[in-house]
Amino acid sequence: MAIDQYVAEYRTRDWQEIEEGRLRIAMIGLGWWTLEEAMPAVEQSSFCETTVVISGDAEKAARVREENETVQRSLTYDEFHDGAATDAYDAIYVCTPNAFHKQYVETAAELDKAVLCEKPLEASVERAEELVAAADDGDIPLMTAYRMQTDPDVRRMRELIQEGAIGEPVAIEGHMTQTMLEVASDDVNQWRVNPDLAGYGASVMDLGIYPLNTARFVLGADPVAAQGSMRSKRQAFSDVPDEYASFMVEYDDGVVATCTASQNAQLSGRFSVIGTDGELTIDPIFLAQTPQTLRLRVDDRTVEIDSGRRDMMGDEMTEEFDYFADRVLRGADIGPDGEHGLLDMRALAAIYEAADTGERVKIA
Amino acid sequence: MAIDQYVAEYRTRDWQEIEEGRLRIAMIGLGWWTLEEAMPAVEQSSFCETTVVISGDAEKAARVREENETVQRSLTYDEFHDGAATDAYDAIYVCTPNAFHKQYVETAAELDKAVLCEKPLEASVERAEELVAAADDGDIPLMTAYRMQTDPDVRRMRELIQEGAIGEPVAIEGHMTQTMLEVASDDVNQWRVNPDLAGYGASVMDLGIYPLNTARFVLGADPVAAQGSMRSKRQAFSDVPDEYASFMVEYDDGVVATCTASQNAQLSGRFSVIGTDGELTIDPIFLAQTPQTLRLRVDDRTVEIDSGRRDMMGDEMTEEFDYFADRVLRGADIGPDGEHGLLDMRALAAIYEAADTGERVKIA
Repeated sequence: MAIDQYVAEYRTRDWQEIEEGRLRIAMIGLGWWTLEEAMPAVEQSSFCETTVVISGDAEKAARVREENETVQRSLTYDEFHDGAATDAYDAIYVCTPNAFHKQYVETAAELDKAVLCEKPLEASVERAEELVAAADDGDIPLMTAYRMQTDPDVRRMRELIQEGAIGEPVAIEGHMTQTMLEVASDDVNQWRVNPDLAGYGASVMDLGIYPLNTARFVLGADPVAAQGSMRSKRQAFSDVPDEYASFMVEYDDGVVATCTASQNAQLSGRFSVIGTDGELTIDPIFLAQTPQTLRLRVDDRTVEIDSGRRDMMGDEMTEEFDYFADRVLRGADIGPDGEHGLLDMRALAAIYEAADTGERVKIA
Repeated sequence: MAIDQYVAEYRTRDWQEIEEGRLRIAMIGLGWWTLEEAMPAVEQSSFCETTVVISGDAEKAARVREENETVQRSLTYDEFHDGAATDAYDAIYVCTPNAFHKQYVETAAELDKAVLCEKPLEASVERAEELVAAADDGDIPLMTAYRMQTDPDVRRMRELIQEGAIGEPVAIEGHMTQTMLEVASDDVNQWRVNPDLAGYGASVMDLGIYPLNTARFVLGADPVAAQGSMRSKRQAFSDVPDEYASFMVEYDDGVVATCTASQNAQLSGRFSVIGTDGELTIDPIFLAQTPQTLRLRVDDRTVEIDSGRRDMMGDEMTEEFDYFADRVLRGADIGPDGEHGLLDMRALAAIYEAADTGERVKIA
């Protein structure tokens, strides 16, 4: 039957244009994500290398330098801001609490370094605007680190939608939940429940942004309005509104996404696009669970793609870093740029405002 | 591992108490659902028999009578209202456009007949209130026909939640979509897009009510507030707001359900409950697709129950009719009664109002 053809055409790295090259990365923020996910991913990459590590803790940075052969220099944040060792790296990867992103991007702009900045871009719309303006003023490449946009299954899902495999997309369902207090049990990582560091909240900022942005990417559409419902119950979440969050986002093509995000529920992620003639689902997704499987269902027929990857996060982050390098080394435009990340900040703010007021909020 | 035990305990008809008995049913409304689903289901049932058929079309009723051995009498609606053949049936099954339900229930109350009434109960909250009041005044048994409440997988899902298999439930995702214009292509069935007959709309009234009510049933909780987003694009849906609908319902235990319903999308149904320690999903569900599979996931382990049923709708309707008979013949209270159906009517009204105003609406 016709739907089998869609599986056969599956391929990876449709974005790659360079054959060789090396982008030297300075890692900013040495939390568990950087150490356990980002640096190993860069080590596996084709076009990136970690050459500098930067932390508030000079001893920790030195230790990480010693443990990683490619790392030439370890710096404190102050040394970075003072322009130390700029010969040793070409780009920075910003992986700190949200509210610290801006200062590193501002310095990178002054130092003329490319930036791969974790999402959400900052803790508030205003700060994200300043961050993007700084990158624009410095004329540096800025990519917002949406790893799903370089995930091969997500890219294939987007292609299938474009090819008409499900007819006209009409609705999206997505959720991302985890028990954050267990995943990141050290005190350092509890910044996610501190509004001064995280921004508007804990679950939609950190997790809800995944289905929100993945929907944008696969639809090729932008969010225009949001509604939300949130609640916090446990003491650990008393400073944020969203231990549990449900929200709806309307996109400019008319599709509505219904989403769930929680930092205190079973580790789980799923993403479905329902169309007039078929349905695409990636389950599990977002959380590095395997086997990540893309399913296309048309009438009673379902075809499945298990990408075969079993080190999901490592592979996803490797794709992301190599994509970033491909763009920076060629001097090409970078897909999810600062403006792209900024629109998500506006959508996030709208979701929180909608949940607070009980009213549908337009995304300016 | 511990989760296997949950599968082993699976059993059907946990509700059944009678061993024998016969409830004689008068079918009201002889559309495709009655003829192709309800009557065959009754034929398979243990405790029901179709003995009377009632239609606006006397010739059609006579033809149906001739084609079905158990059917003794065929009546017009007027003859029914006049009290004809009351010796030939004990209960009525109301399966007409929503806005006609009330008149048949009022007459059944006068004639002292039990009622199994299709959902939604009526076309508006006010009319549903009058319907329930009529049944109360006549002191007749009234069940709202939520077939998911007697579906063995749904009942098992509820038990698993009660047994703590997923910890504390925190969020629900559900959708039900179909291409109604193709499923029910005759003009007669297009009442679903006519507000005078269907009520507030086409998709949430007819389909969205499934996840809305299934959530109530498995949580043992009632809806307290709603938000919604709807749009209609095609000419066929120009009189209703909801060719496509997305909505969120908050329940009184704090759980929020995010739902999608559409009469113009791929035939698809899924229902998931995410908890603090696990996740339960029935996929597919609602639309008689097979294999209907109940999945319990805890951490990285998933156990599956394929009920083995391959005539889903027939089996579901048989369960529902036999449950109804079990309750009526014993004179026992009936699970989803009129008040239960009435609360859904208030929830439906709130969803439509919320979508219209862009504001969260409390469900009185």
